[in-house]
Amino acid sequence: MRPAASRLHRQVEFIVEVDRLKEIFRQNRLTVSRRRENDAEHSWHLCLSVLVLAEHADVPRLDVLRALKMLILHDLVEIDAGDTFAYDTAGASKQHEREARAAERIFGLLPEDQAREFRSIWEEFEERKTPEARFAAAIDRFQPMLLNTRTEGHSWRQHGVVASQVMSRGAAIREASSSLWEYVADMIRDAVSRGHLADG
Amino acid sequence: MRPAASRLHRQVEFIVEVDRLKEIFRQNRLTVSRRRENDAEHSWHLCLSVLVLAEHADVPRLDVLRALKMLILHDLVEIDAGDTFAYDTAGASKQHEREARAAERIFGLLPEDQAREFRSIWEEFEERKTPEARFAAAIDRFQPMLLNTRTEGHSWRQHGVVASQVMSRGAAIREASSSLWEYVADMIRDAVSRGHLADG
Repeated sequence: MRPAASRLHRQVEFIVEVDRLKEIFRQNRLTVSRRRENDAEHSWHLCLSVLVLAEHADVPRLDVLRALKMLILHDLVEIDAGDTFAYDTAGASKQHEREARAAERIFGLLPEDQAREFRSIWEEFEERKTPEARFAAAIDRFQPMLLNTRTEGHSWRQHGVVASQVMSRGAAIREASSSLWEYVADMIRDAVSRGHLADG
Repeated sequence: MRPAASRLHRQVEFIVEVDRLKEIFRQNRLTVSRRRENDAEHSWHLCLSVLVLAEHADVPRLDVLRALKMLILHDLVEIDAGDTFAYDTAGASKQHEREARAAERIFGLLPEDQAREFRSIWEEFEERKTPEARFAAAIDRFQPMLLNTRTEGHSWRQHGVVASQVMSRGAAIREASSSLWEYVADMIRDAVSRGHLADG
């Protein structure tokens, strides 16, 4: 195989491998059928939400392309590491180690330069230091809360999550967008008043 | 409600509405579970494929952000109009009219400036005239072919699709990337030789 053909071959094999993200199911439920959401459709929903909500970022110029790249790639490690429920503190302790191993294998399927690039995008997201990583993380917190409020708090009630836990996860939203955070805080209080989220 | 709050409210309602894209199922099958793929996870897979394959576009500088925006939005009209199978020529005749009505309603949920912007991104994709629209369309043709070759031609065989039909849909790939097209033409010939796609 010529070098160019072999490069494309590795890229295509990566695209086939990540098809598995569609089989990783999260705790959140879809608004209509109420089935669990998978990581691939979740990632798409976050990308769309960034296109719609980017104007609400607290920084004046958000690099939307960078934020989208992070959200397209952010859950790939779950192909190997599985989904860790947002409020599962026991699972979270080994999560980073599992995910780092997964990143090594999965991004390692790509040609070397691209493996490095994709891994650094994923690490930027994980570190939450740049405005784009902060905004992407805010959207990744916001979307499951939104789905919860539109499914009568399905996964909150199922796992006995209480309002103070949701508020505390919301900190990532507050750091990136004060207007979105104001909206979310109202949304959480409303969920409590409707009995979809336990006070406490 | 203050104007800013009402703008955010409309944006959030749009984000909730498009959750329905996850319930629109296509003919293609996933490589592992073999269930049908839905439009939302398909859209994500196309976005990721653009990140991986953009270097193969025949134009020197592809606006990757523009291509991603098109792919994030391209299937939203199917929430109302449903999925039309690639090789369904009867369904295709009324497809454009159904989709234009859907675009009116769905993008119309957004604040007016954003409705206009998103609609124009969708129209650019549909018209296939810019390099970004052509490349996005090429990826939208490539991904289902790839899934078919990795599921022993599941949806090709189910619908009696033959090689000349697949080759002819591949024209959109040839127009955007000669190296990807070369790869795809090999892939199609290989599918025929393995008996996953009928010759003809």
